[in-house]
Amino acid sequence: MSQKLMIIDTDCGIDDAQAIMLALASSNVKILGITCCFGNTDVDNVCQNVLRVLSVCQRTQIPVFRGAASCLVGATNPFKDHFGTDGLGDVLQDRDSDTWKTQIQKEHAVNSLIRLVSEHPGQVSLVALGPLTNLALAVRLDPSIPQKLKDLYIMGGNMEGKGNLMPCAEFNFCMDPESSYIVLEEYLCPTHIATWEFTCRNKLSWEFFDELIAQDTAAARFMKTITSKCWAFSQEPGRNAKDVLFGSGFVPYDAYAVAACVDGSVITESVECSVRVEIQGELGRGMMALDFLGKLKSHRVFVMKTCNLTKFSSMLMASLQQP
Amino acid sequence: MSQKLMIIDTDCGIDDAQAIMLALASSNVKILGITCCFGNTDVDNVCQNVLRVLSVCQRTQIPVFRGAASCLVGATNPFKDHFGTDGLGDVLQDRDSDTWKTQIQKEHAVNSLIRLVSEHPGQVSLVALGPLTNLALAVRLDPSIPQKLKDLYIMGGNMEGKGNLMPCAEFNFCMDPESSYIVLEEYLCPTHIATWEFTCRNKLSWEFFDELIAQDTAAARFMKTITSKCWAFSQEPGRNAKDVLFGSGFVPYDAYAVAACVDGSVITESVECSVRVEIQGELGRGMMALDFLGKLKSHRVFVMKTCNLTKFSSMLMASLQQP
Amino acid sequence: MSQKLMIIDTDCGIDDAQAIMLALASSNVKILGITCCFGNTDVDNVCQNVLRVLSVCQRTQIPVFRGAASCLVGATNPFKDHFGTDGLGDVLQDRDSDTWKTQIQKEHAVNSLIRLVSEHPGQVSLVALGPLTNLALAVRLDPSIPQKLKDLYIMGGNMEGKGNLMPCAEFNFCMDPESSYIVLEEYLCPTHIATWEFTCRNKLSWEFFDELIAQDTAAARFMKTITSKCWAFSQEPGRNAKDVLFGSGFVPYDAYAVAACVDGSVITESVECSVRVEIQGELGRGMMALDFLGKLKSHRVFVMKTCNLTKFSSMLMASLQQP
Amino acid sequence: MSQKLMIIDTDCGIDDAQAIMLALASSNVKILGITCCFGNTDVDNVCQNVLRVLSVCQRTQIPVFRGAASCLVGATNPFKDHFGTDGLGDVLQDRDSDTWKTQIQKEHAVNSLIRLVSEHPGQVSLVALGPLTNLALAVRLDPSIPQKLKDLYIMGGNMEGKGNLMPCAEFNFCMDPESSYIVLEEYLCPTHIATWEFTCRNKLSWEFFDELIAQDTAAARFMKTITSKCWAFSQEPGRNAKDVLFGSGFVPYDAYAVAACVDGSVITESVECSVRVEIQGELGRGMMALDFLGKLKSHRVFVMKTCNLTKFSSMLMASLQQP
Repeated sequence: MSQKLMIIDTDCGIDDAQAIMLALASSNVKILGITCCFGNTDVDNVCQNVLRVLSVCQRTQIPVFRGAASCLVGATNPFKDHFGTDGLGDVLQDRDSDTWKTQIQKEHAVNSLIRLVSEHPGQVSLVALGPLTNLALAVRLDPSIPQKLKDLYIMGGNMEGKGNLMPCAEFNFCMDPESSYIVLEEYLCPTHIATWEFTCRNKLSWEFFDELIAQDTAAARFMKTITSKCWAFSQEPGRNAKDVLFGSGFVPYDAYAVAACVDGSVITESVECSVRVEIQGELGRGMMALDFLGKLKSHRVFVMKTCNLTKFSSMLMASLQQP
Repeated sequence: MSQKLMIIDTDCGIDDAQAIMLALASSNVKILGITCCFGNTDVDNVCQNVLRVLSVCQRTQIPVFRGAASCLVGATNPFKDHFGTDGLGDVLQDRDSDTWKTQIQKEHAVNSLIRLVSEHPGQVSLVALGPLTNLALAVRLDPSIPQKLKDLYIMGGNMEGKGNLMPCAEFNFCMDPESSYIVLEEYLCPTHIATWEFTCRNKLSWEFFDELIAQDTAAARFMKTITSKCWAFSQEPGRNAKDVLFGSGFVPYDAYAVAACVDGSVITESVECSVRVEIQGELGRGMMALDFLGKLKSHRVFVMKTCNLTKFSSMLMASLQQP
Repeated sequence: MSQKLMIIDTDCGIDDAQAIMLALASSNVKILGITCCFGNTDVDNVCQNVLRVLSVCQRTQIPVFRGAASCLVGATNPFKDHFGTDGLGDVLQDRDSDTWKTQIQKEHAVNSLIRLVSEHPGQVSLVALGPLTNLALAVRLDPSIPQKLKDLYIMGGNMEGKGNLMPCAEFNFCMDPESSYIVLEEYLCPTHIATWEFTCRNKLSWEFFDELIAQDTAAARFMKTITSKCWAFSQEPGRNAKDVLFGSGFVPYDAYAVAACVDGSVITESVECSVRVEIQGELGRGMMALDFLGKLKSHRVFVMKTCNLTKFSSMLMASLQQP
Repeated sequence: MSQKLMIIDTDCGIDDAQAIMLALASSNVKILGITCCFGNTDVDNVCQNVLRVLSVCQRTQIPVFRGAASCLVGATNPFKDHFGTDGLGDVLQDRDSDTWKTQIQKEHAVNSLIRLVSEHPGQVSLVALGPLTNLALAVRLDPSIPQKLKDLYIMGGNMEGKGNLMPCAEFNFCMDPESSYIVLEEYLCPTHIATWEFTCRNKLSWEFFDELIAQDTAAARFMKTITSKCWAFSQEPGRNAKDVLFGSGFVPYDAYAVAACVDGSVITESVECSVRVEIQGELGRGMMALDFLGKLKSHRVFVMKTCNLTKFSSMLMASLQQP
């Protein structure tokens, strides 16, 4: 069987690191490049985080590109510290070194996206794990990009009017509403979305997480290290009583989108419907709307509903058996 | 036990008629007045519909007041024909007669609201079943009204980002977003909301509906008549396979709000949280946002979640045993 | 010649006081009532200010009505202190007394507007000198009011994209953008607007102001008193070098609108065009747009351009020769 | 004296053609490149138009780059036909040929902008004559571009709340409000703006226009040809009685911006103030707001007020004495 060609666009925080490792561990996937975007932390930290993940997994030959440092229109929201200020739990050393700059490609992420997709028309799966700024800029520089993609997987948006950054809006979409709007309106390739509520409603147990990071591999030790401080609560007695909306548990957000791309059978139910991102309003801005009324003639996408947790768990477990 | 004092504000369609009958049938409730608002149909039809319901139930001594004919700001949405163009299924005769004008009170609904509430400070339960225009105008003319109310029950809004008039917005709120916004921001009395999703998720069966309207009373015959044409599908084989989001069934929308006011034990679970209505945006406008993040310092209300369907069914059944 | 019937709606600050005196001094005008609105100061101060002006002019038989205390939608802007916190220069005594409450009519300003206009259909000139909240509420309670008016004079809005409260929006309109929008869309009677730029471009000299308040009458002494503190700069050497946009001078804002109503020949040039108030946006909100492109099919009004300053000066001078 | 280095970003219509010729005729200017943007017509037509102008002036060695084909966010406005559907008066032949594609640079306009400016830090004057999409994309791909520019000249925006595409908004800004917003917020280099009202208030006579295009040169003949059809009215008796707002006359819009860049003394008065573009609202969207109140802490720019028409006329006359 031929390999899937994948490009990952990421704002590399802890869950992105996990998601990238899942892709790296997939034997049927060839990663053409990883493009970086601001989001969980600033884009310079994101570049360093991706390089670090590749280094841990001994896959440094994969090119990494620096992309957007801010959202498309208006002032950029402050970064949230869910994964520490550096995005990987604030425990890694050598942040001050500039050697990473020699390891980043000279080409801008947006230009690399356009080039790599154009070199493999109809073959590339694009997986977007952060704000969608690089994708929006790419379609502005080359409007033919969406039709050259094989498909698009997105972690972002919401589907029950519930959000995490704002009452009705999810972090990735809310960090750049205009780019989210543009991507959903103009990337008319087959599109699969792992919303925030989807990931929360398909959570894993903290007991599984314990097992996951207890493996005796470089990747598992790395994951244990970067979660040691900012997810300290996950080692505490109360860890199973946190979230009021969805209950408590281990939710490796971005990993669902990568898993769905690697093996479509991980997603056991999706709903196909028109979607649009609201860009106006104090509360609506950044919210993804699902249209079941037929009011919108907008892009029909696949919104994930349920996940085969057994299969997904296996993939996660295998992903940390590297290198 | 002393009687509850109730004012009903309504855009009287079929479900409002059912809801009003439920209140009329409650021995512990005294209805001080019914105020009319545009919504399911124009306000003149609404006035006639309310008078007709009172006539059927032989309760014509209850004063009926004409109120807002349009939304607060901007052009009013066209009326939807869910309940026919006249709001009561387009089957009633005598629409051309002007005798109803002699039966309507001279006082404007907004002034009557202010007067009736002020005459019974702390005692009146206000039940709002249509667009909230009359309530918004009342608080502008007399800002002390909310604090003089005992409590407020609203059928309207949404709680899962799903709507019926628009992808994310429910009919009553969407017909006048600014008034919905004003009422939720300024009516700081205890407030209970029956959202669209709540009513849909607590539906009854069409078999119950058959039984309900088969009773040998004037009220049941009236309900059978007004549902005969516009709910014709409910007498067809496919009636149990309609709605994709919530399944199919009989949902007497406004009746949940009245029932909750008449007997609080009908509602078995509510969630208390801050809410706000979005008034901007193509998709957000008219949507009610629930804040579980603590971002909004807005009014905390009780959003209904589950209903004791046995008790509610009994109340509905009794409501048509009139007069 | 028969008398003009006039209702004045005001947020009585110093310029409103001057404008009311101009109306009181006009022998061909009968003032049916004065309705009060928040604006330059809170509505209770406005009521007291109007009563004080009528008292100074010995015209206390004119009924005064209390109206809107806040804008139609959303939080009310803080009052600006251009005319002091009490609206009349913070120099008057007896603010703590409650006797004014006995002098205010019991009827709400909005109801009085509806009643007075309905009692004299086609005869009443309405002059609006503050935020347009009372007018907006009146048309919501009785949509027939605009067609029963003879005409409408407004001080408010802007016509060159320049504002005083905001970069593009004038105080009266900006204090309640939704009400301004409603009034311009729905008051389809002949409408004459004295914008902020119009008043500034038709300014009088500070020397004229000196002469005006130096007259030996109760009214002139009152005007001298209330301008003594907050317009202290007008007695200083630099008084002729203040404003960068329009030069310096004495601009009795609201008095232009009353003068235009009393004697139409005071306005020597107007432009008739469609107008609309923008209600959205950080910068556009509250701005009045003039349409010379034919894009808007909205209300065509008369926007004042030039004023016969000789005639206007005489009217002002005469207005302080009371009682 | 050393040459000024200039990049022209254009949506080449008739006035852009005139403006480019003015730059070409300036002996002290070296044009590093011309970047193309949609606007007066689609970006393919714009490319062809620029190449045609360079050909007429025998300056085909100047590189031309294709840029944005649509606005940054949302659907692009239909092109207006003020200069014909092809932007140059619908009179030129050979539109169907594809040879122009071989003459356009391979590099995208946005990348060329970044490269050319970075190669000459602090030395390049950028003159923007169309929608500002290319400039907005450039600063997103390389946030350091604005500080590397010498200065920026823009034809666009409005300063009296009057527009041509919309009642309050000028064509170039209104065709891409978000890009206009971004450029004015983030291009913090010295910025000079020729607004629509500025150009209209500094119009030339149609008699001058007659003289201008009557010159016996290739450039003048070209200008005569492309204006022959769509400006046919300018050869008619009524040509001096067209515009209600600003009177009638010959207004070579974009040429003012180029002239100001070539020779700063052409502009005899400017006002320095904070500006911001409104991006929301039916009427405000695309409007440039000038802040004389100190409310905005935004970018202070030089808004042109008056022009030395004698000097400007001479430059225009000389610009058509090519080649």
